[in-house]
Amino acid sequence: MKNLELDLGERSYPIFIARDLIGEPDLWTKYIAGKQVCIVTNDTIAPLYLEKLKAQLGDKSVCEVILPDGEAYKTLTTLEQIFDTLLAKNHNRGTTLIALGGGVVGDMCGFAAACYQRGVQFIQIPSTLLSMVDSSVGGKTGVNHPMGKNMIGAFHQPNCVLADLSLLDTLPEREYSAGMAEVIKYGLICDAPFFEWLESNIAGLMSRNTDLLEEAVYRSCVNKAEVVAEDEREGGRRAILNLGHTFGHAIETAEGYGNWLHGEAVSAGMVLAMALSLELGWLGADIYERGKKLLELAGLPISPPENMDVDQFLQLMGRDKKVLDGRLRLVLLKGLGEAVVSSEAPEATIAKVLRAAGVRA
Amino acid sequence: MKNLELDLGERSYPIFIARDLIGEPDLWTKYIAGKQVCIVTNDTIAPLYLEKLKAQLGDKSVCEVILPDGEAYKTLTTLEQIFDTLLAKNHNRGTTLIALGGGVVGDMCGFAAACYQRGVQFIQIPSTLLSMVDSSVGGKTGVNHPMGKNMIGAFHQPNCVLADLSLLDTLPEREYSAGMAEVIKYGLICDAPFFEWLESNIAGLMSRNTDLLEEAVYRSCVNKAEVVAEDEREGGRRAILNLGHTFGHAIETAEGYGNWLHGEAVSAGMVLAMALSLELGWLGADIYERGKKLLELAGLPISPPENMDVDQFLQLMGRDKKVLDGRLRLVLLKGLGEAVVSSEAPEATIAKVLRAAGVRA
Repeated sequence: MKNLELDLGERSYPIFIARDLIGEPDLWTKYIAGKQVCIVTNDTIAPLYLEKLKAQLGDKSVCEVILPDGEAYKTLTTLEQIFDTLLAKNHNRGTTLIALGGGVVGDMCGFAAACYQRGVQFIQIPSTLLSMVDSSVGGKTGVNHPMGKNMIGAFHQPNCVLADLSLLDTLPEREYSAGMAEVIKYGLICDAPFFEWLESNIAGLMSRNTDLLEEAVYRSCVNKAEVVAEDEREGGRRAILNLGHTFGHAIETAEGYGNWLHGEAVSAGMVLAMALSLELGWLGADIYERGKKLLELAGLPISPPENMDVDQFLQLMGRDKKVLDGRLRLVLLKGLGEAVVSSEAPEATIAKVLRAAGVRA
Repeated sequence: MKNLELDLGERSYPIFIARDLIGEPDLWTKYIAGKQVCIVTNDTIAPLYLEKLKAQLGDKSVCEVILPDGEAYKTLTTLEQIFDTLLAKNHNRGTTLIALGGGVVGDMCGFAAACYQRGVQFIQIPSTLLSMVDSSVGGKTGVNHPMGKNMIGAFHQPNCVLADLSLLDTLPEREYSAGMAEVIKYGLICDAPFFEWLESNIAGLMSRNTDLLEEAVYRSCVNKAEVVAEDEREGGRRAILNLGHTFGHAIETAEGYGNWLHGEAVSAGMVLAMALSLELGWLGADIYERGKKLLELAGLPISPPENMDVDQFLQLMGRDKKVLDGRLRLVLLKGLGEAVVSSEAPEATIAKVLRAAGVRA
């Protein structure tokens, strides 16, 4: 087992990484302060892992909220279901919420914990690779609004995170690859040795070797923690975590959320960001090729969708909230493991890179 | 003008207290960081003060949300109106919300500020005496749930508070008295000299003399700040702010919210709490009489409603969230200005005091 201790804001918390962590209650039930526990999960994960989790909580008063699976339900309306259950079961300020699921469940459960009686404790048990390496670090919680993703939320740190790798046994291959896009991202933006380690071990990782996965999740969390610690509330450096995301959001919006998974759109977006960095003379062609190759070996798309055109792309990128003072701010690379946030790329250069990647003029 | 600086948690902020503060933009517009401002108010206050406030914000991009007036609208559904407007008007993370209204507007606007894009800045301009002396200090924000008041919320401190006493010119007498109940409460729980000052000046205060009001609001805020600073997240001492509130909640619930104003119920509740303290031998009869007299001179009820019986009272008090481990915890007085939180009062003694106050057996 690996674990790391995160020290963000007023409180620190541990992330445990290993197989079969749910089955080791001695490790983690001490992070439940009181007698009351509410498990928040979804209707995909509940049949697989809910009973096992509940079996560890024999001495607690446990209730559960099973939400419909999917980003479409990450709303204030769904959030009310959690509050309804907590109040109907008389949960008080000493209750602990447990998020059992992917990013959507984690974000909603965390936000419910941030707001219920002005703040209660919570534990995260991420069930996807993406949520293990991304939303388990940084304390971002929230829901979507019809006019924008994650527009309503709070910063709220969990008591602990259990990255139980055995939950990945039931993760579909496509979602596994999508999570790997964010893992590779950490190598690209700030950890060249990790990128090289990923290159050497991508075959084993794709066959879900436990030791390799443990290392990959651990290094991803360490990298995210370092970036976030410098900039907890997202003023500056934290933005490098968005490598490929502005291009990616354009793809997700154009294709409809869910048709391209977030990680897939980020993968194609990172290739575009690397191509733009290359075009600007900031990145060597060898690094661009190695980045693209590694994403491909992870089973990820490396080209944007064929049905988009350049104008549409630029327009959707411009609508993204990362726009400041009317200039398009993008995360680009000045070398392997060296991301920068820059508004230096002229729109014409971005358009040229898009066309070269096969986007219609 | 009086002002005090509050130092709570990670940030401090000033409370300004004087007439015509809205009309002095040099004093307070510097607390607006960016170009965007959203004023949240209600349909009672908007016709009276909204245009005057907007006139001070000439160089800002201002939008407004006018909510229906009343506690019944302090819900997640109403909150969404604020988010809808902010997103429709493209307000970003640099926006500043201004709460122009009483406690309901302040709580909702503050909670919207806590959650919009995971936290934006806000300014409070309380329009009632109650909100000037109560909700302007402490950072509590939130909305009600059908199953409980203030069950969903956050701690979020404003950038500054303008207690503009001229807004009280249009406050109905009954609401003015209700605010005075909380002012008197501070004297009773922790500030005997202030209580004596109130005794000497109650006539002038009830005629809304500006200098006296300025002093009363100032001393109330100072007292609340001292109590809250010791216990920002409400573990212990902050509970003394609830003198009379457990009895009061029982009255509000039995009579239906709004039929008895909160301050009126608290007034009758404080008299009961003093009577119980007297019965326990903790408080002299003279202090009990002086407390009752001062509340009466402030135009407040000093007896519980005639249509309640003792069983109902006890049952409604027991349902209150201040119950811990099945024992009724009450704020009682061990002297003027000396509140304690105690579960020592036997139920039989509480029942005796209720009967003596005219509650049916």
